[in-house]
Amino acid sequence: MAPAAPPNPTPETTPSGHQLFTRIRLATPSDIPHIHKLIHQMAVFERLTHLFSATESSLSATLFSPTVQPFHSFTILLLEASTTLFPVSTFDSNPFFKPLTEVVNLRLPFEDPERETFKSRDDVTVVGYVMFFPNYSTFLGKPGFYVENLYVRECYRRMGFGKMFFCAVTKEAVKMKYGRVDWVVLDWNVNALRFYEEMGAEIVEEYKFFRLTGKPLQASGHTH
Amino acid sequence: MAPAAPPNPTPETTPSGHQLFTRIRLATPSDIPHIHKLIHQMAVFERLTHLFSATESSLSATLFSPTVQPFHSFTILLLEASTTLFPVSTFDSNPFFKPLTEVVNLRLPFEDPERETFKSRDDVTVVGYVMFFPNYSTFLGKPGFYVENLYVRECYRRMGFGKMFFCAVTKEAVKMKYGRVDWVVLDWNVNALRFYEEMGAEIVEEYKFFRLTGKPLQASGHTH
Repeated sequence: MAPAAPPNPTPETTPSGHQLFTRIRLATPSDIPHIHKLIHQMAVFERLTHLFSATESSLSATLFSPTVQPFHSFTILLLEASTTLFPVSTFDSNPFFKPLTEVVNLRLPFEDPERETFKSRDDVTVVGYVMFFPNYSTFLGKPGFYVENLYVRECYRRMGFGKMFFCAVTKEAVKMKYGRVDWVVLDWNVNALRFYEEMGAEIVEEYKFFRLTGKPLQASGHTH
Repeated sequence: MAPAAPPNPTPETTPSGHQLFTRIRLATPSDIPHIHKLIHQMAVFERLTHLFSATESSLSATLFSPTVQPFHSFTILLLEASTTLFPVSTFDSNPFFKPLTEVVNLRLPFEDPERETFKSRDDVTVVGYVMFFPNYSTFLGKPGFYVENLYVRECYRRMGFGKMFFCAVTKEAVKMKYGRVDWVVLDWNVNALRFYEEMGAEIVEEYKFFRLTGKPLQASGHTH
Protein backbone atom coordinates (compact mmCIF):
# COMPACT_ATOMS: atom_id res chain seq x y z
CA MET A 1 0.00 0.00 0.00
CA ALA A 2 1.12 3.57 -0.20
CA PRO A 3 1.06 7.17 0.80
CA ALA A 4 -2.40 8.36 1.53
CA ALA A 5 -3.59 11.39 3.38
CA PRO A 6 -6.84 12.28 5.11
CA PRO A 7 -9.55 13.64 2.81
CA ASN A 8 -9.47 17.32 2.00
CA PRO A 9 -11.35 19.57 4.46
CA THR A 10 -14.54 21.36 3.42
CA PRO A 11 -14.44 21.68 -0.37
CA GLU A 12 -14.63 25.18 -1.82
CA THR A 13 -17.91 25.51 -3.65
CA THR A 14 -17.99 29.19 -4.57
CA PRO A 15 -18.19 29.97 -8.30
CA SER A 16 -14.71 31.54 -8.05
CA GLY A 17 -13.19 28.09 -7.22
CA HIS A 18 -11.36 25.89 -9.71
CA GLN A 19 -12.88 22.53 -10.48
CA LEU A 20 -10.97 19.31 -10.96
CA PHE A 21 -13.01 16.51 -12.52
CA THR A 22 -11.84 13.06 -11.49
CA ARG A 23 -12.71 9.55 -12.56
CA ILE A 24 -11.75 6.07 -11.37
CA ARG A 25 -11.87 3.51 -14.16
CA LEU A 26 -10.54 0.05 -14.97
CA ALA A 27 -7.06 0.08 -16.54
CA THR A 28 -6.59 -1.22 -20.09
CA PRO A 29 -3.50 -2.55 -21.92
CA SER A 30 -2.88 0.91 -23.43
CA ASP A 31 -2.36 2.28 -19.90
CA ILE A 32 0.72 0.07 -19.35
CA PRO A 33 3.33 2.84 -19.92
CA HIS A 34 1.68 5.04 -17.28
CA ILE A 35 1.19 2.11 -14.91
CA HIS A 36 4.86 1.19 -15.24
CA LYS A 37 5.92 4.76 -14.37
CA LEU A 38 3.51 4.90 -11.42
CA ILE A 39 4.84 1.60 -10.02
CA HIS A 40 8.37 2.94 -10.32
CA GLN A 41 7.40 6.12 -8.47
CA MET A 42 5.89 3.98 -5.76
CA ALA A 43 9.15 1.95 -5.49
CA VAL A 44 11.06 5.25 -5.14
CA PHE A 45 8.65 6.43 -2.45
CA GLU A 46 9.02 3.12 -0.57
CA ARG A 47 12.84 3.22 -0.96
CA LEU A 48 12.66 -0.17 -2.64
CA THR A 49 13.98 0.52 -6.15
CA HIS A 50 16.50 -2.35 -5.63
CA LEU A 51 13.45 -4.67 -5.79
CA PHE A 52 12.03 -3.03 -8.92
CA SER A 53 12.47 -5.11 -12.06
CA ALA A 54 9.06 -4.81 -13.76
CA THR A 55 9.09 -3.92 -17.44
CA GLU A 56 6.24 -2.74 -19.63
CA SER A 57 6.23 -6.12 -21.34
CA SER A 58 6.26 -8.18 -18.11
CA LEU A 59 3.34 -6.11 -16.81
CA SER A 60 1.50 -6.40 -20.09
CA ALA A 61 1.93 -10.19 -20.30
CA THR A 62 0.80 -10.86 -16.73
CA LEU A 63 -1.86 -8.21 -16.07
CA PHE A 64 -3.82 -8.60 -19.26
CA SER A 65 -3.47 -12.30 -20.09
CA PRO A 66 -6.57 -14.37 -21.00
CA THR A 67 -6.79 -15.91 -17.49
CA VAL A 68 -7.02 -12.44 -15.92
CA GLN A 69 -10.59 -11.31 -15.35
CA PRO A 70 -11.11 -8.03 -13.45
CA PHE A 71 -12.06 -8.55 -9.77
CA HIS A 72 -11.59 -12.33 -10.13
CA SER A 73 -7.87 -11.93 -10.72
CA PHE A 74 -5.30 -9.10 -10.89
CA THR A 75 -7.09 -5.77 -11.12
CA ILE A 76 -5.89 -2.20 -11.62
CA LEU A 77 -8.06 0.87 -11.23
CA LEU A 78 -6.67 4.20 -12.41
CA LEU A 79 -7.65 7.66 -11.25
CA GLU A 80 -7.62 10.37 -13.89
CA ALA A 81 -8.10 14.12 -13.49
CA SER A 82 -9.19 16.78 -15.94
CA THR A 83 -10.05 20.47 -15.74
CA THR A 84 -13.01 19.81 -18.04
CA LEU A 85 -15.86 17.31 -17.81
CA PHE A 86 -15.07 13.77 -19.03
CA PRO A 87 -16.89 13.13 -22.31
CA VAL A 88 -19.05 10.01 -22.62
CA SER A 89 -16.75 7.08 -23.48
CA THR A 90 -16.59 3.30 -23.81
CA PHE A 91 -15.50 3.16 -20.15
CA ASP A 92 -19.04 4.13 -19.19
CA SER A 93 -20.37 0.87 -20.61
CA ASN A 94 -17.56 -1.37 -19.32
CA PRO A 95 -19.24 -4.63 -18.24
CA PHE A 96 -16.90 -5.12 -15.26
CA PHE A 97 -16.79 -1.66 -13.75
CA LYS A 98 -18.77 1.55 -14.12
CA PRO A 99 -16.43 4.52 -13.57
CA LEU A 100 -16.72 6.49 -10.33
CA THR A 101 -16.56 10.24 -10.72
CA GLU A 102 -16.04 13.10 -8.31
CA VAL A 103 -15.56 16.85 -8.65
CA VAL A 104 -12.97 18.46 -6.41
CA ASN A 105 -13.16 22.20 -5.81
CA LEU A 106 -9.83 23.93 -5.42
CA ARG A 107 -8.98 27.44 -4.18
CA LEU A 108 -6.15 27.88 -6.67
CA PRO A 109 -5.65 26.72 -10.27
CA PHE A 110 -3.97 23.33 -10.25
CA GLU A 111 -0.32 22.82 -11.24
CA ASP A 112 0.94 19.32 -12.15
CA PRO A 113 4.72 19.39 -12.77
CA GLU A 114 4.54 15.94 -14.45
CA ARG A 115 1.53 16.74 -16.57
CA GLU A 116 3.17 15.78 -19.87
CA THR A 117 4.53 12.48 -18.52
CA PHE A 118 1.17 11.35 -17.23
CA LYS A 119 -1.08 12.80 -19.90
CA SER A 120 -3.51 10.11 -21.05
CA ARG A 121 -5.41 12.16 -23.65
CA ASP A 122 -6.21 15.81 -24.35
CA ASP A 123 -6.77 17.43 -21.01
CA VAL A 124 -6.65 14.20 -18.95
CA THR A 125 -3.78 13.14 -16.66
CA VAL A 126 -3.29 9.95 -14.65
CA VAL A 127 -3.21 10.67 -10.92
CA GLY A 128 -2.61 7.26 -9.37
CA TYR A 129 -3.59 3.60 -9.21
CA VAL A 130 -4.76 0.85 -6.95
CA MET A 131 -3.71 -2.73 -7.69
CA PHE A 132 -5.53 -5.61 -5.99
CA PHE A 133 -6.66 -9.20 -6.46
CA PRO A 134 -8.80 -11.82 -4.69
CA ASN A 135 -7.45 -13.62 -1.67
CA TYR A 136 -9.30 -16.31 0.30
CA SER A 137 -10.14 -16.90 3.95
CA THR A 138 -10.62 -20.59 4.72
CA PHE A 139 -11.97 -19.65 8.17
CA LEU A 140 -14.70 -17.45 6.64
CA GLY A 141 -15.13 -19.84 3.72
CA LYS A 142 -15.09 -17.00 1.22
CA PRO A 143 -12.86 -14.73 -0.84
CA GLY A 144 -11.68 -11.23 -0.04
CA PHE A 145 -9.36 -8.74 -1.67
CA TYR A 146 -5.67 -8.17 -1.10
CA VAL A 147 -4.53 -4.66 -2.00
CA GLU A 148 -0.98 -4.78 -3.33
CA ASN A 149 -0.54 -1.04 -3.98
CA LEU A 150 -2.48 2.16 -3.57
CA TYR A 151 -0.58 5.13 -4.97
CA VAL A 152 -1.44 8.78 -5.56
CA ARG A 153 1.13 11.05 -7.24
CA GLU A 154 2.66 13.62 -4.90
CA CYS A 155 0.98 16.77 -6.20
CA TYR A 156 -2.46 15.14 -5.85
CA ARG A 157 -2.12 14.07 -2.22
CA ARG A 158 -4.28 15.41 0.64
CA MET A 159 -7.24 15.82 -1.73
CA GLY A 160 -9.21 12.71 -0.77
CA PHE A 161 -8.08 10.47 -3.63
CA GLY A 162 -6.61 7.81 -1.32
CA LYS A 163 -10.00 7.47 0.33
CA MET A 164 -11.75 7.45 -3.06
CA PHE A 165 -9.53 4.56 -4.22
CA PHE A 166 -9.88 2.70 -0.96
CA CYS A 167 -13.67 2.96 -1.00
CA ALA A 168 -13.78 1.83 -4.63
CA VAL A 169 -12.15 -1.43 -3.48
CA THR A 170 -14.25 -1.92 -0.34
CA LYS A 171 -17.42 -1.10 -2.27
CA GLU A 172 -16.62 -3.84 -4.78
CA ALA A 173 -15.75 -6.25 -1.94
CA VAL A 174 -19.12 -5.63 -0.28
CA LYS A 175 -20.94 -5.95 -3.62
CA MET A 176 -19.26 -9.32 -4.24
CA LYS A 177 -20.08 -10.45 -0.64
CA TYR A 178 -16.39 -10.84 0.11
CA GLY A 179 -15.31 -11.28 3.72
CA ARG A 180 -12.32 -9.02 4.14
CA VAL A 181 -9.79 -6.66 2.60
CA ASP A 182 -6.12 -7.10 3.58
CA TRP A 183 -2.90 -5.22 2.81
CA VAL A 184 0.48 -4.40 4.30
CA VAL A 185 2.04 -1.04 5.12
CA LEU A 186 5.72 -0.27 5.74
CA ASP A 187 6.18 0.45 9.45
CA TRP A 188 7.86 3.85 8.83
CA ASN A 189 5.02 5.15 6.66
CA VAL A 190 3.20 6.93 9.50
CA ASN A 191 0.83 8.86 7.22
CA ALA A 192 -0.42 5.61 5.69
CA LEU A 193 -0.68 3.90 9.09
CA ARG A 194 -2.82 6.79 10.39
CA PHE A 195 -4.93 6.93 7.22
CA TYR A 196 -5.83 3.25 7.31
CA GLU A 197 -6.55 3.25 11.02
CA GLU A 198 -8.95 6.13 10.37
CA MET A 199 -10.61 3.94 7.70
CA GLY A 200 -11.49 1.47 10.48
CA ALA A 201 -8.82 -1.11 9.61
CA GLU A 202 -6.84 -2.96 12.25
CA ILE A 203 -3.25 -4.12 12.33
CA VAL A 204 -2.99 -7.88 12.93
CA GLU A 205 -0.03 -7.58 15.30
CA GLU A 206 0.54 -11.34 15.70
CA TYR A 207 1.25 -11.95 12.01
CA LYS A 208 4.82 -12.48 10.89
CA PHE A 209 4.96 -11.92 7.13
CA PHE A 210 7.16 -14.51 5.39
CA ARG A 211 8.56 -14.32 1.86
CA LEU A 212 10.51 -16.80 -0.25
CA THR A 213 11.96 -15.29 -3.40
CA GLY A 214 15.04 -15.29 -5.65
CA LYS A 215 17.58 -18.10 -5.25
CA PRO A 216 16.03 -19.72 -2.14
CA LEU A 217 12.73 -20.02 -4.03
CA GLN A 218 14.47 -21.55 -7.04
CA ALA A 219 16.33 -23.98 -4.76
CA SER A 220 13.15 -24.98 -2.92
CA GLY A 221 11.23 -25.47 -6.16
CA HIS A 222 13.87 -27.85 -7.48
CA THR A 223 14.08 -29.96 -4.30
CA HIS A 224 12.00 -32.90 -5.49
CA MET B 1 0.14 -21.21 7.57
CA ALA B 2 0.36 -23.91 10.16
CA PRO B 3 2.17 -26.38 12.30
CA ALA B 4 5.00 -27.96 10.48
CA ALA B 5 7.95 -29.89 11.80
CA PRO B 6 11.38 -30.64 10.40
CA PRO B 7 11.51 -33.62 8.02
CA ASN B 8 11.91 -37.07 9.52
CA PRO B 9 15.51 -38.20 10.10
CA THR B 10 17.00 -41.10 8.13
CA PRO B 11 14.09 -43.23 6.96
CA GLU B 12 14.05 -46.87 8.06
CA THR B 13 14.54 -49.02 4.99
CA THR B 14 14.88 -52.51 6.44
CA PRO B 15 12.27 -55.04 5.29
CA SER B 16 10.99 -55.20 8.90
CA GLY B 17 9.85 -51.53 8.68
CA HIS B 18 6.27 -50.44 8.01
CA GLN B 19 5.58 -48.49 4.85
CA LEU B 20 3.24 -45.55 4.54
CA PHE B 21 2.40 -44.61 0.95
CA THR B 22 1.57 -40.93 0.53
CA ARG B 23 0.23 -38.86 -2.31
CA ILE B 24 -0.36 -35.12 -2.85
CA ARG B 25 -3.19 -34.47 -5.27
CA LEU B 26 -5.54 -31.68 -6.28
CA ALA B 27 -8.71 -31.50 -4.15
CA THR B 28 -12.09 -32.10 -5.80
CA PRO B 29 -15.62 -31.04 -4.77
CA SER B 30 -16.17 -34.45 -3.13
CA ASP B 31 -13.34 -33.66 -0.68
CA ILE B 32 -15.28 -30.71 0.80
CA PRO B 33 -16.41 -32.53 4.00
CA HIS B 34 -12.80 -33.47 4.82
CA ILE B 35 -11.51 -30.01 3.88
CA HIS B 36 -14.10 -28.40 6.15
CA LYS B 37 -13.01 -30.60 9.08
CA LEU B 38 -9.33 -29.90 8.41
CA ILE B 39 -9.91 -26.13 8.32
CA HIS B 40 -11.77 -26.39 11.62
CA GLN B 41 -8.89 -28.35 13.17
CA MET B 42 -6.52 -25.65 11.96
CA ALA B 43 -8.72 -22.94 13.57
CA VAL B 44 -8.60 -24.93 16.84
CA PHE B 45 -4.81 -25.22 16.59
CA GLU B 46 -4.49 -21.47 15.93
CA ARG B 47 -6.92 -20.68 18.81
CA LEU B 48 -9.08 -18.78 16.33
CA THR B 49 -12.36 -20.73 16.37
CA HIS B 50 -14.17 -17.43 17.10
CA LEU B 51 -13.25 -16.47 13.51
CA PHE B 52 -14.42 -19.77 12.01
CA SER B 53 -17.69 -19.51 10.11
CA ALA B 54 -17.00 -21.57 6.97
CA THR B 55 -19.63 -24.14 6.05
CA GLU B 56 -19.39 -27.00 3.58
CA SER B 57 -21.67 -25.10 1.24
CA SER B 58 -19.76 -21.78 1.46
CA LEU B 59 -16.52 -23.64 0.71
CA SER B 60 -18.11 -25.56 -2.11
CA ALA B 61 -19.59 -22.45 -3.75
CA THR B 62 -16.36 -20.42 -3.60
CA LEU B 63 -13.61 -23.01 -4.10
CA PHE B 64 -15.10 -24.86 -7.04
CA SER B 65 -16.99 -22.16 -8.93
CA PRO B 66 -16.53 -21.78 -12.73
CA THR B 67 -14.12 -18.83 -12.33
CA VAL B 68 -11.78 -20.94 -10.17
CA GLN B 69 -9.01 -22.60 -12.17
CA PRO B 70 -6.32 -24.47 -10.20
CA PHE B 71 -3.07 -22.46 -9.78
CA HIS B 72 -4.68 -19.43 -11.47
CA SER B 73 -7.12 -18.99 -8.60
CA PHE B 74 -7.89 -20.67 -5.25
CA THR B 75 -6.12 -24.02 -5.06
CA ILE B 76 -6.19 -26.84 -2.52
CA LEU B 77 -3.80 -29.77 -2.53
CA LEU B 78 -4.55 -32.70 -0.23
CA LEU B 79 -2.12 -35.22 1.18
CA GLU B 80 -3.43 -38.75 1.56
CA ALA B 81 -1.80 -41.76 3.21
CA SER B 82 -2.35 -45.47 2.76
CA THR B 83 -0.64 -48.62 4.01
CA THR B 84 -0.96 -50.07 0.51
CA LEU B 85 0.11 -48.73 -2.87
CA PHE B 86 -2.29 -46.22 -4.49
CA PRO B 87 -4.01 -47.85 -7.47
CA VAL B 88 -3.91 -46.07 -10.83
CA SER B 89 -6.69 -43.45 -10.84
CA THR B 90 -8.10 -40.47 -12.71
CA PHE B 91 -5.90 -38.23 -10.56
CA ASP B 92 -2.88 -39.52 -12.46
CA SER B 93 -4.15 -37.95 -15.66
CA ASN B 94 -5.37 -34.66 -14.12
CA PRO B 95 -4.50 -31.93 -16.66
CA PHE B 96 -3.65 -29.38 -13.95
CA PHE B 97 -1.55 -31.43 -11.54
CA LYS B 98 0.18 -34.80 -11.63
CA PRO B 99 0.12 -36.28 -8.10
CA LEU B 100 3.36 -36.35 -6.10
CA THR B 101 4.03 -39.59 -4.25
CA GLU B 102 6.42 -40.57 -1.50
CA VAL B 103 6.93 -43.68 0.62
CA VAL B 104 7.67 -43.15 4.30
CA ASN B 105 9.29 -45.98 6.25
CA LEU B 106 8.20 -46.25 9.86
CA ARG B 107 9.68 -48.29 12.73
CA LEU B 108 6.26 -49.07 14.20
CA PRO B 109 2.87 -49.78 12.65
CA PHE B 110 0.98 -46.50 12.27
CA GLU B 111 -1.97 -45.55 14.47
CA ASP B 112 -4.37 -42.81 13.35
CA PRO B 113 -6.96 -42.10 16.07
CA GLU B 114 -9.14 -40.17 13.58
CA ARG B 115 -8.86 -42.73 10.83
CA GLU B 116 -12.62 -43.13 10.37
CA THR B 117 -13.29 -39.37 10.28
CA PHE B 118 -10.70 -38.74 7.60
CA LYS B 119 -11.09 -41.91 5.56
CA SER B 120 -11.38 -40.99 1.88
CA ARG B 121 -11.77 -44.49 0.45
CA ASP B 122 -10.83 -48.04 1.40
CA ASP B 123 -7.44 -47.86 3.04
CA VAL B 124 -6.84 -44.16 2.29
CA THR B 125 -6.96 -41.32 4.86
CA VAL B 126 -6.57 -37.57 4.41
CA VAL B 127 -3.51 -36.28 6.26
CA GLY B 128 -3.61 -32.53 5.61
CA TYR B 129 -3.97 -29.75 3.08
CA VAL B 130 -2.33 -26.70 1.66
CA MET B 131 -4.51 -23.83 0.39
CA PHE B 132 -2.97 -21.13 -1.80
CA PHE B 133 -3.72 -18.75 -4.67
CA PRO B 134 -1.88 -16.32 -6.96
CA ASN B 135 -0.78 -12.95 -5.65
CA TYR B 136 1.03 -10.27 -7.69
CA SER B 137 4.16 -8.20 -7.24
CA THR B 138 4.00 -4.94 -9.18
CA PHE B 139 7.71 -4.36 -8.45
CA LEU B 140 8.66 -7.70 -10.04
CA GLY B 141 5.97 -7.31 -12.69
CA LYS B 142 4.81 -10.88 -12.19
CA PRO B 143 2.58 -13.14 -10.10
CA GLY B 144 3.53 -15.28 -7.13
CA PHE B 145 1.66 -17.49 -4.69
CA TYR B 146 0.18 -16.62 -1.33
CA VAL B 147 -0.17 -19.63 0.97
CA GLU B 148 -3.24 -19.20 3.15
CA ASN B 149 -2.93 -22.46 5.13
CA LEU B 150 -0.60 -25.42 5.38
CA TYR B 151 -1.94 -28.02 7.80
CA VAL B 152 -0.89 -31.55 8.72
CA ARG B 153 -3.01 -33.52 11.22
CA GLU B 154 -1.34 -34.01 14.59
CA CYS B 155 -0.49 -37.73 14.37
CA TYR B 156 1.24 -37.19 11.02
CA ARG B 157 3.58 -34.40 12.13
CA ARG B 158 7.39 -34.67 12.22
CA MET B 159 7.34 -37.04 9.23
CA GLY B 160 8.33 -34.57 6.50
CA PHE B 161 4.83 -33.84 5.17
CA GLY B 162 5.07 -30.10 5.86
CA LYS B 163 8.14 -29.93 3.68
CA MET B 164 6.49 -32.11 1.02
CA PHE B 165 3.53 -29.70 0.85
CA PHE B 166 5.73 -26.63 0.89
CA CYS B 167 7.91 -27.94 -1.94
CA ALA B 168 4.82 -28.86 -3.97
CA VAL B 169 3.88 -25.16 -3.89
CA THR B 170 7.36 -23.77 -4.57
CA LYS B 171 7.89 -26.31 -7.37
CA GLU B 172 4.72 -25.10 -9.07
CA ALA B 173 5.76 -21.45 -8.53
CA VAL B 174 9.12 -22.08 -10.20
CA LYS B 175 7.47 -23.99 -13.05
CA MET B 176 5.09 -21.09 -13.67
CA LYS B 177 8.01 -18.59 -13.50
CA TYR B 178 6.41 -16.86 -10.53
CA GLY B 179 8.48 -14.38 -8.54
CA ARG B 180 7.75 -15.18 -4.93
CA VAL B 181 5.81 -17.17 -2.36
CA ASP B 182 4.38 -15.28 0.64
CA TRP B 183 2.48 -16.31 3.78
CA VAL B 184 1.97 -15.28 7.39
CA VAL B 185 2.69 -17.19 10.60
CA LEU B 186 1.31 -16.46 14.07
CA ASP B 187 4.13 -15.09 16.21
CA TRP B 188 3.66 -17.70 18.99
CA ASN B 189 3.94 -20.65 16.60
CA VAL B 190 7.67 -21.18 17.17
CA ASN B 191 7.77 -24.58 15.42
CA ALA B 192 6.37 -23.04 12.25
CA LEU B 193 8.68 -20.01 12.48
CA ARG B 194 11.71 -22.32 12.78
CA PHE B 195 10.47 -24.63 10.00
CA TYR B 196 10.02 -21.82 7.47
CA GLU B 197 13.31 -20.17 8.33
CA GLU B 198 14.98 -23.53 7.65
CA MET B 199 13.22 -23.53 4.25
CA GLY B 200 15.17 -20.35 3.38
CA ALA B 201 12.27 -17.93 3.85
CA GLU B 202 12.68 -14.55 5.47
CA ILE B 203 10.39 -12.53 7.70
CA VAL B 204 9.65 -9.08 6.25
CA GLU B 205 9.92 -7.30 9.62
CA GLU B 206 8.85 -3.87 8.33
CA TYR B 207 5.42 -5.03 7.16
CA LYS B 208 2.39 -4.14 9.24
CA PHE B 209 -0.47 -6.43 8.20
CA PHE B 210 -3.79 -4.58 7.94
CA ARG B 211 -7.25 -6.09 7.78
CA LEU B 212 -10.69 -4.58 7.25
CA THR B 213 -13.54 -6.97 7.94
CA GLY B 214 -17.02 -7.23 9.47
CA LYS B 215 -18.92 -4.03 10.18
CA PRO B 216 -16.09 -1.57 9.36
CA LEU B 217 -15.78 -3.21 5.91
CA GLN B 218 -19.53 -2.96 5.34
CA ALA B 219 -19.48 0.69 6.45
CA SER B 220 -16.55 1.54 4.17
CA GLY B 221 -18.12 -0.24 1.20
CA HIS B 222 -21.29 1.79 1.55
CA THR B 223 -19.58 5.18 1.90
CA HIS B 224 -20.14 6.42 -1.62
